[in-house]
Amino acid sequence: MNYIKKRWVWVLSLALMMTLVLVTPAFAQDGTPPSEEVVDATLSLNIMWMIIGGFLVFFMQAGFALVETGFTRNKNVAHTMMMNMMVFCIGAIGYWLTGFAFQFGAVNAAYPGVSTAGAIVGEWAHSPITLGDWTGFLSAPLIRFGQFGFLGGSGFLLAGFGANAGLLAFFLFQMVFMDTAATIPTGSMAERLKFIGFVLMGLWVSMFIYPLVGGWIWGGGWLQNLGRSMGLGNGAVDFAGSGVVHMIGGAIGLAGAMVIGPRIGKFNKDGSANTIPGHSISLGVLGTIILFFGWFGFNPGSSLGFVGAFRNLAVIAAINTLLAGAAGGCSAMTYMWLVGPTKKPDPGMSVNGILAGLVAITAPCAFVDSWAAVVIGLIAGLIVCWATVWLEKWKIDDPVGAVPVHFFNGMWGVLAVGIFANGNPDTAAWNGVESAVTGLLYGGTTQILAQLAEVVSIFVAVFGLTYVFFKILAALKLLRVSREVELQGLDVPEMGALGYPKDWEPSDVEDSEKTFAGKRVKALGTTD
Amino acid sequence: MNYIKKRWVWVLSLALMMTLVLVTPAFAQDGTPPSEEVVDATLSLNIMWMIIGGFLVFFMQAGFALVETGFTRNKNVAHTMMMNMMVFCIGAIGYWLTGFAFQFGAVNAAYPGVSTAGAIVGEWAHSPITLGDWTGFLSAPLIRFGQFGFLGGSGFLLAGFGANAGLLAFFLFQMVFMDTAATIPTGSMAERLKFIGFVLMGLWVSMFIYPLVGGWIWGGGWLQNLGRSMGLGNGAVDFAGSGVVHMIGGAIGLAGAMVIGPRIGKFNKDGSANTIPGHSISLGVLGTIILFFGWFGFNPGSSLGFVGAFRNLAVIAAINTLLAGAAGGCSAMTYMWLVGPTKKPDPGMSVNGILAGLVAITAPCAFVDSWAAVVIGLIAGLIVCWATVWLEKWKIDDPVGAVPVHFFNGMWGVLAVGIFANGNPDTAAWNGVESAVTGLLYGGTTQILAQLAEVVSIFVAVFGLTYVFFKILAALKLLRVSREVELQGLDVPEMGALGYPKDWEPSDVEDSEKTFAGKRVKALGTTD
Amino acid sequence: MNYIKKRWVWVLSLALMMTLVLVTPAFAQDGTPPSEEVVDATLSLNIMWMIIGGFLVFFMQAGFALVETGFTRNKNVAHTMMMNMMVFCIGAIGYWLTGFAFQFGAVNAAYPGVSTAGAIVGEWAHSPITLGDWTGFLSAPLIRFGQFGFLGGSGFLLAGFGANAGLLAFFLFQMVFMDTAATIPTGSMAERLKFIGFVLMGLWVSMFIYPLVGGWIWGGGWLQNLGRSMGLGNGAVDFAGSGVVHMIGGAIGLAGAMVIGPRIGKFNKDGSANTIPGHSISLGVLGTIILFFGWFGFNPGSSLGFVGAFRNLAVIAAINTLLAGAAGGCSAMTYMWLVGPTKKPDPGMSVNGILAGLVAITAPCAFVDSWAAVVIGLIAGLIVCWATVWLEKWKIDDPVGAVPVHFFNGMWGVLAVGIFANGNPDTAAWNGVESAVTGLLYGGTTQILAQLAEVVSIFVAVFGLTYVFFKILAALKLLRVSREVELQGLDVPEMGALGYPKDWEPSDVEDSEKTFAGKRVKALGTTD
Repeated sequence: MNYIKKRWVWVLSLALMMTLVLVTPAFAQDGTPPSEEVVDATLSLNIMWMIIGGFLVFFMQAGFALVETGFTRNKNVAHTMMMNMMVFCIGAIGYWLTGFAFQFGAVNAAYPGVSTAGAIVGEWAHSPITLGDWTGFLSAPLIRFGQFGFLGGSGFLLAGFGANAGLLAFFLFQMVFMDTAATIPTGSMAERLKFIGFVLMGLWVSMFIYPLVGGWIWGGGWLQNLGRSMGLGNGAVDFAGSGVVHMIGGAIGLAGAMVIGPRIGKFNKDGSANTIPGHSISLGVLGTIILFFGWFGFNPGSSLGFVGAFRNLAVIAAINTLLAGAAGGCSAMTYMWLVGPTKKPDPGMSVNGILAGLVAITAPCAFVDSWAAVVIGLIAGLIVCWATVWLEKWKIDDPVGAVPVHFFNGMWGVLAVGIFANGNPDTAAWNGVESAVTGLLYGGTTQILAQLAEVVSIFVAVFGLTYVFFKILAALKLLRVSREVELQGLDVPEMGALGYPKDWEPSDVEDSEKTFAGKRVKALGTTD
Repeated sequence: MNYIKKRWVWVLSLALMMTLVLVTPAFAQDGTPPSEEVVDATLSLNIMWMIIGGFLVFFMQAGFALVETGFTRNKNVAHTMMMNMMVFCIGAIGYWLTGFAFQFGAVNAAYPGVSTAGAIVGEWAHSPITLGDWTGFLSAPLIRFGQFGFLGGSGFLLAGFGANAGLLAFFLFQMVFMDTAATIPTGSMAERLKFIGFVLMGLWVSMFIYPLVGGWIWGGGWLQNLGRSMGLGNGAVDFAGSGVVHMIGGAIGLAGAMVIGPRIGKFNKDGSANTIPGHSISLGVLGTIILFFGWFGFNPGSSLGFVGAFRNLAVIAAINTLLAGAAGGCSAMTYMWLVGPTKKPDPGMSVNGILAGLVAITAPCAFVDSWAAVVIGLIAGLIVCWATVWLEKWKIDDPVGAVPVHFFNGMWGVLAVGIFANGNPDTAAWNGVESAVTGLLYGGTTQILAQLAEVVSIFVAVFGLTYVFFKILAALKLLRVSREVELQGLDVPEMGALGYPKDWEPSDVEDSEKTFAGKRVKALGTTD
Repeated sequence: MNYIKKRWVWVLSLALMMTLVLVTPAFAQDGTPPSEEVVDATLSLNIMWMIIGGFLVFFMQAGFALVETGFTRNKNVAHTMMMNMMVFCIGAIGYWLTGFAFQFGAVNAAYPGVSTAGAIVGEWAHSPITLGDWTGFLSAPLIRFGQFGFLGGSGFLLAGFGANAGLLAFFLFQMVFMDTAATIPTGSMAERLKFIGFVLMGLWVSMFIYPLVGGWIWGGGWLQNLGRSMGLGNGAVDFAGSGVVHMIGGAIGLAGAMVIGPRIGKFNKDGSANTIPGHSISLGVLGTIILFFGWFGFNPGSSLGFVGAFRNLAVIAAINTLLAGAAGGCSAMTYMWLVGPTKKPDPGMSVNGILAGLVAITAPCAFVDSWAAVVIGLIAGLIVCWATVWLEKWKIDDPVGAVPVHFFNGMWGVLAVGIFANGNPDTAAWNGVESAVTGLLYGGTTQILAQLAEVVSIFVAVFGLTYVFFKILAALKLLRVSREVELQGLDVPEMGALGYPKDWEPSDVEDSEKTFAGKRVKALGTTD
């Protein structure tokens, strides 16, 4: 009588008895599928998980702002913070206008229902309220090239969504993912990017380039269909976007850093590189922890639901995210301590090691064992150290290491699916292919090819088109600030405000204040 | 029939009928309502959503602290941070003692069940465990003036709540909302408010003035009943508190800024105003992103549940919050860039534009289409720019723009419900009126009058009473620090600690340290 | 059958039998308890609550980083931030390797099913999917000393967990709790701890000492069983870890501060102590608010579920956490204002008062009334003020007050259960004892003895063993940096990077830059 309180037992028993006595006779013949209330609760659970995940991903914007600003200089603080705050505002409007429609407003007519969205429809089909709108949305006309999905075309300004909670939550979730990709290049181009150039870049990413390529992998497009169309494993598999979000963002960042050129003083005449330390380790590390926190929305939230198999995938993703991020931090720190130039546990590289581990586990997080997550993270931590050296060799200046973290480790994460995916039966039918997602180590020989296709496609399409885009901005003198502005710092000339102004004081009392400064003065009461 | 929206009724009826037709033989006599487990899960979903929302709103306290401190000066950092930390502590105790009881410890006997709490009771009535306590709580005696609910009177110190999870979670949720209102005026009175005056203000807001007026709109009071009593639309409709929280907080802030007077040096003898820049854009922007993040608890959480229609309202609120905040940032930034004094994308005003958009969408977030959210946000971004100028013209010094953001845009948000509310059937029976919430653009002609009544009432009651309150504090010399303290900065005289002290060193080793400083010294091993 | 408490089984069986006897005639063939979908939704709700709680606790790492760094000096910023970031990375790997297995990989064969984990099994037994794995995991061999559970021995590297979402989420939740204990001592040893010593300490805590003692109280060990074995109330009861997490962390911190010795200059030759102010109140206060926010995952999340009685416990925990933290802040602030050396509302002590209240309510949060939570918090705020003075008298230097906050108030919190626990029937059968958890004030006379046993055991085992551990590190010259390094600051010698470097500029343009500095320069267009 102890664990369950008495009242509860009586109520339960009474309720059970009454119910059963009254209705038993008729219960034998039908299987009684879930009641309306159960369907409703299930739908609520799935959507609540997705939208809370979206909130956490939104918060990553604070992490990016702090990492980028912490690892750049005092004189550019207002500029760097503003880019990271406004990229969300600009991106939200852009994605609402066209981005979401381009990315998800399509379904491959040849292979219906194979997009992630399709999987959701399948699972959420319990709900008659929702299913109609989902399918209505997804059956919109598709611009196709050959038999492959290429670009969506419905859902501009959320038209036709009505009050469909599932679709609206999905929009919010996808919007903040796009935003992550859009904010990455502000790091590689920091300390020299014109604000107008940044604004145009934000529109380019949110309205076109991210939706285009993202749709190929998540919106029912041709990369996602490589399993059914060409027999390559389950097609391109990217659980939370090592490729879709991070490699896209990193490729844009790489193109940007190349076109905009290095900061004044980064490279010496003999070709050697100078280290330009950022102004605040405390802000940079704080940002890193915020990013790690937000990643628990990014990866586990990408299950897009929390009932049944969704729950398993979400929790596995959480554990692997935890372990890979930790492993990345450990390996980068250890590498720098043992092999790096300072022979010390370098804070900046430890930060990037954690982020590298997180980026790398993003695609495989739901598909691999925990030991594999640790291995993927350890390797990611090394890749970020090496890639930082490569970039300097190539004379590319990336102030915060956005390209080593997001581009190279995004690539590594996508490929890691093809190596470590363990064939968990919960992943069967991913992208419409019957078998579970299986990598090389578990006997899946073709999955790696689909992953390679994703990597190559992202590089060619995103890097290529965006390189041209930035070249045009540069030709229009919209990309890089003048030498004078760069030396002074961008804050006053570009933003009209210093990041850290000295305290302003009225001139007529300045002298008297100096007399007080530093002494303890007793409060004398109000003067007004 | 009024709380349940029509569509829902049809679907439910249809589902029920189909079910009954199939199993009727045995079912005719009872209808088998959801099982105990399903009721329990539903209740858990609703409460979980509300309490997680409450946690996010709590976190907004960090955002307010950073925005206010970032946009004020170095010499007042400890003072400004402390106000924003302690307002929660003081407010929590005050709201527990009397505030919650004043705000929600009443139900209008003439119009039972019309408060938001009443709506919850209606929807949560599935749960026999909870309903009893809810109604017991809500049927407590009411202090009434005429036929209108005016002030609650039960639930002091949570008396009678027992282990009722729904009520306790509701207390937590409402407490953090009150806290938001209480922290707003610390911004408009920053850099000159005595700490004892701040403490008394915290008690005034948490124990009396916020609960009084908040109860009129959310606790079953007379403004909420204007629909049934006077035929004005659905009565005052304020989903998450543009009026209840932000305009109340802003009105207190306005009264405070007027009574306490401008900072030394803000206005010149010729009447022109000086810009007094804050000390840290990075902290200010970080705070803004935290506030945006917390707003996803503030607005969507105000559905107070996540099952059925609650879920729809929550997700619509989330999308509209996202879009309006983004639009507010874009319009304020663009306005400053094109028309502002610096002709640059001003960081401070961009911050306030985002916050303005968020404040303005807070009342209408669940009632409007996404295009309307964008429009509301764009206008909010302009209002905040203009209101900043108005205040300076009126010689009111509001260091962080609390009044432009919260007072003026809180007002705009309340009125926007009367203009843009789209008559979504999910909102039928709001505040006990059969029809859905409908604004001018959708043919609802009287809703705007109820919204005007809310705006006027808040201004008269909150601004009026609080103006007197602050005048008394001033007369008792408890409001403003002395001229000397203000010039020196409030940190040492008021708090006994500098915000950013220089590193303390033992005097006997100071010289030797100077020798080391800046050089790389190899660690020599432990000395102890 | 052993993991389900016997009483539960009897009650359930009885209820079922009674029901079945009455209605069997028609029901013999199916029985239909809650459908698969309802079981699944219930399981999802419980796991979602636990894992979201875990995410919030993870985020507390940011709070610890900021509080510790804010309250230490500029010259050690990179070192202090790095410790707080890397402790998670190191700890995650260590806890995955051995910690979790030591802590939870056991069950007391003499008293089956009395661990918290056991209670979960009992409640989650609805779910056939999960139960199997839980029991498989928990029935692993146990290393025992006498008849008491002492150390677990299965689950290394998550072996055998498969895709069990419940177990994996439980691992994540417990990992972040361990991390909290591990990060506490970095505060008491800040500004002088060698980084290699920190790394070894992180491994010691995560891999051995925390799991050992934590398992005694949460993993089915002997302290948890004192109710059944010795008749002491419900055995050691510690809802969210005032003892397990905070007193363990504080005891490690105390041992560390004693072995490593005070910072240079902390104590004068006459024995008096100097105040060494931290470098940033804004970071310290921000960290405090983040910690408060995370505590809503820490305490309410420790219900480990959100359905039925779990929900009640979770929400009560949330309210009490809110009130006790607020009360702690109020009492510490008031004490310093009235009695403290500065006679001002000291920011540092207000911060620690809030944290003290939070630490103290952590054990009793689900067991006490709201008035008791306020009392516990008020006393905690005083304890932290007094303990700060005690430590200085004892010549122990704890830069951030980790010992007053976590050790002394952890102790107070554990004991408070024995005083204030209100016998809420929801807590009946806690730790396998029939009665509800009941303190002295409600007539429970033996609970306080079990709580005393927890306090003494933690002190003896954790402080004792860790003192030896640190002595060994000191003997190996791995614990404390040299005098030169300490005076210079640890950042450059230990980490190779300053926390706040001056802006780096290329030397050949330095002069020209000085000309620009401070002036508004118009952007001249791209130069590249």
